[in-house]
Amino acid sequence: MEQRFIDWLVSEVGVDPRNDVGIGDDAAVMRPPAGRRTVLCTDMLCEGVHFPASPGYDPRAVGRKAIAVNLSDVAAMAGRPESAVVSVALPRRGGQHVGEHLLAGMLEEARRFGVALVGGDTTSWDGPLVVNVAMLGSVVPGRVWRRDGAREGDVLLVTGACGGSLLGRHLAVQPRVTEARLIAEMVTVHAAIDISDGLALDLSRMLEASGCAAEVDLALIPIHPDAVAAAEAEPTKGTACDRALGDGEDFELLLSLAPAEAEKLLAAHEHGTLAGWPGTSLTEIGRVVAGRGMVGIAEDGSRSVLPPRGYLHAFN
Amino acid sequence: MEQRFIDWLVSEVGVDPRNDVGIGDDAAVMRPPAGRRTVLCTDMLCEGVHFPASPGYDPRAVGRKAIAVNLSDVAAMAGRPESAVVSVALPRRGGQHVGEHLLAGMLEEARRFGVALVGGDTTSWDGPLVVNVAMLGSVVPGRVWRRDGAREGDVLLVTGACGGSLLGRHLAVQPRVTEARLIAEMVTVHAAIDISDGLALDLSRMLEASGCAAEVDLALIPIHPDAVAAAEAEPTKGTACDRALGDGEDFELLLSLAPAEAEKLLAAHEHGTLAGWPGTSLTEIGRVVAGRGMVGIAEDGSRSVLPPRGYLHAFN
Repeated sequence: MEQRFIDWLVSEVGVDPRNDVGIGDDAAVMRPPAGRRTVLCTDMLCEGVHFPASPGYDPRAVGRKAIAVNLSDVAAMAGRPESAVVSVALPRRGGQHVGEHLLAGMLEEARRFGVALVGGDTTSWDGPLVVNVAMLGSVVPGRVWRRDGAREGDVLLVTGACGGSLLGRHLAVQPRVTEARLIAEMVTVHAAIDISDGLALDLSRMLEASGCAAEVDLALIPIHPDAVAAAEAEPTKGTACDRALGDGEDFELLLSLAPAEAEKLLAAHEHGTLAGWPGTSLTEIGRVVAGRGMVGIAEDGSRSVLPPRGYLHAFN
Repeated sequence: MEQRFIDWLVSEVGVDPRNDVGIGDDAAVMRPPAGRRTVLCTDMLCEGVHFPASPGYDPRAVGRKAIAVNLSDVAAMAGRPESAVVSVALPRRGGQHVGEHLLAGMLEEARRFGVALVGGDTTSWDGPLVVNVAMLGSVVPGRVWRRDGAREGDVLLVTGACGGSLLGRHLAVQPRVTEARLIAEMVTVHAAIDISDGLALDLSRMLEASGCAAEVDLALIPIHPDAVAAAEAEPTKGTACDRALGDGEDFELLLSLAPAEAEKLLAAHEHGTLAGWPGTSLTEIGRVVAGRGMVGIAEDGSRSVLPPRGYLHAFN
């Protein structure tokens, strides 16, 4: 029964001292952190789209991912995640088990990043599992990373490596919250976006919003070993580099910043002077130029139009 | 294509002057209203559960309801709704049409109550339509309506009338935002809840959270004409009063307050001195007493245990 589940949930989650009213009321009430702006985002995960269809999914991993993808959005604004509300449509059969493991995964990921679960909504139905998280964060005014601030002359950096996430990494998302905080504290970033649908597609979104173009050094793109493995397994579906550009669900950060700032950041990263940096790689992959669109530059210097490959939700 | 839909959506929604970053980025960024607490809630609507299955639903009405049920939650905390983020899982076939009308309905309801749509997430799939809204509001510190503050001796009031919402009213939710604001400005309310799952069930939740019991004057319960019609159509499923107690999806406010405060409020309501009050009825239906559980008192004075009837999402 929903009430029993809710009671259990309330006892599991507890009350966070930052909040006046936590889980269990019509809404949560929080004290906004002094001197900061409010960040709000939301992401929905659907069975068979964002995780395998039953019985192929692990509800605990789904729970972790539901929180992690929102953490990634908050990180992409240079925000500090604060609290989250969760909606779930649970299957009528087995919903108790799914719900408990889902929540366990969400709590695990939320606690890892200091996020309080403050409320939610539970439905049971005969449809697929759907999980939605909305996350509240905060950010220092004037230090918000928008996606539309890239400027001609900027350098493009990417955290981690891309491609092949479908081999399993897409269910073990590592949100770059700490990396974002450390970067924002050290340098000025003109634009940022998290790579959810594909490096090329998300870069094109940043460029379109900013009214600029980019040159991408294809040989510099950090290719994840999973992209290599996926390309070897299905060579007809593109090279490892193609996969790094278009697979998506990487949840890495793509940043655009002035050359001097990029140099400063890369030097600190290389010399290990970014205290608390989790060991994530940081790679310069190209630069912002005037115009529209993207050009890929191969190792031999040859240039080709880089299409905005990635995952698009098609409907008609 | 999602991108075209998002572009259209961004142009439709526009940017609210309260916000630093609106729809179209990884997350929205807002200035929290000075001197107020933050309110956050979320509600998910699922096809075939919260609205009829395709082709029986009107996407515009679904959009209005998705916003309205969240407005109702914010109202039940005495909050002022500020902004919302929306997630939708759209059917692959016909998703463009559904998405556009859904958004039109959401915008209509949001604008009616001064709420800015600041972000969202779109998925397309072969599953049923799912819409989630998370709403941000604000509230004066110390004037938050919790559900756990009812006290022995309190009077119970309910706005509007209950029962029979399935005849269509459940898709035309009238969130009591204005009523809540006017009440909060005039009197002290000890506890409040919005009636989503049933008057009896939601009252029992308030009482359990508060550690009290209640006596309900059955003849005073405001019965909606729809409850009368539904009871006449299906007499085996309970009387009109049963339906008012258990049908749910009324989205009326249930309030617990000290007798003197209730008297003051009812007098102002009766004499029409609550400037801006939308004409909603306001009815005293019982009182909070010591103990546990609920007792219904019939017109002849006979007493019976009142079960916490209502809609529960069952799963196992």
